[in-house]
Amino acid sequence: MNAEKIPDIIITRLPVYLRALQRMADHGIRTTSSQELGKHVGISAAQIRKDISQFGEFGKQGTGYSIPYLLDKLREILKVDRLWDVIIVGAGDMGHALARYQGFVDRGFNVVMIFDNDKHKIGHKIGHLVVEDTADLLERVKSSGIKIAMLTIPATVAQDITDKLVEAGIQAILNYAPISLNVPDDVKVQYIDPATHLQRMTYYL
Amino acid sequence: MNAEKIPDIIITRLPVYLRALQRMADHGIRTTSSQELGKHVGISAAQIRKDISQFGEFGKQGTGYSIPYLLDKLREILKVDRLWDVIIVGAGDMGHALARYQGFVDRGFNVVMIFDNDKHKIGHKIGHLVVEDTADLLERVKSSGIKIAMLTIPATVAQDITDKLVEAGIQAILNYAPISLNVPDDVKVQYIDPATHLQRMTYYL
Repeated sequence: MNAEKIPDIIITRLPVYLRALQRMADHGIRTTSSQELGKHVGISAAQIRKDISQFGEFGKQGTGYSIPYLLDKLREILKVDRLWDVIIVGAGDMGHALARYQGFVDRGFNVVMIFDNDKHKIGHKIGHLVVEDTADLLERVKSSGIKIAMLTIPATVAQDITDKLVEAGIQAILNYAPISLNVPDDVKVQYIDPATHLQRMTYYL
Repeated sequence: MNAEKIPDIIITRLPVYLRALQRMADHGIRTTSSQELGKHVGISAAQIRKDISQFGEFGKQGTGYSIPYLLDKLREILKVDRLWDVIIVGAGDMGHALARYQGFVDRGFNVVMIFDNDKHKIGHKIGHLVVEDTADLLERVKSSGIKIAMLTIPATVAQDITDKLVEAGIQAILNYAPISLNVPDDVKVQYIDPATHLQRMTYYL
């Protein structure tokens, strides 16, 4: 297995397989086939077999995949066999929703800080977090060694904040702001702007 | 131009071009080149030229693209030259955030209803909307002719609600619930589960 050679498009599908397998495990199911998994995720069995085989031999002909084993392996490949500290920048409605979201910890993420530049928000509690001043962002992130940030700020300030995050050592950004970000090649960005995603569907209506 | 022949991957990029061009227009810029647009969106100039040329001749050699003209055309292609009514199912934190989000109307979407099955939420106001009972979902959506829904409900109920939405005539679903949905071929789903998007980046860390 050579991680460098796995195409991005396969990496994109692995979290979807992981999520479906976890759901099966939660229902007490211990083995599955590429056909069954395919039905759950809407991807062909052949594609699933091809994707998973990139990482070694996981299934046995005729007996299918062991779900606990495949879960372990997928978590290891995606590096979510550990808990990553994550920060949120922007304590508006979306920042609030993410700070209170219960679905992160089981999937490898722990929101540990939230920042805003609004004096009316700084110092307020959201769940177990206290909103911190964006002015302290660089220092706080740098000294903590955190690698992952979620951006829920207006587009107008998103690039400036991104530059600061990169300087502070952030290497992965989940961007809710409706703007493309310029980052160095070694920093990953995932875009999650809802209007863009809606516009990808209206074409077909 | 034959809409049937345009690959999905190109349609995926068009809203990103539209967003960047709108931003330039907001700054008073009236012409651009594939090079300049490429810098904004992190996509090669050659790819942009190829994508846009699928829909006809938009730019002139040497003078670049007229931004107002390209904006009009992209909106027309993506069918966001009109305002689509959209419903939200789930009035939790994320549903709240989406109901109050200011970024939809300018980009073709108008949230007109929000539903929840929690008696403590039904009847409460979120912005200018009143939370309605999910029990009325089928009837309300059917009679309104609405085609687009955003799902911000737990994974456990997402498929049941999806079946109801499809029965009611919904053809496009933006799904925040952490689960793959089974829908007929003519219904589109975009997935926006934050943990899945984070896991697509940890692989590279």
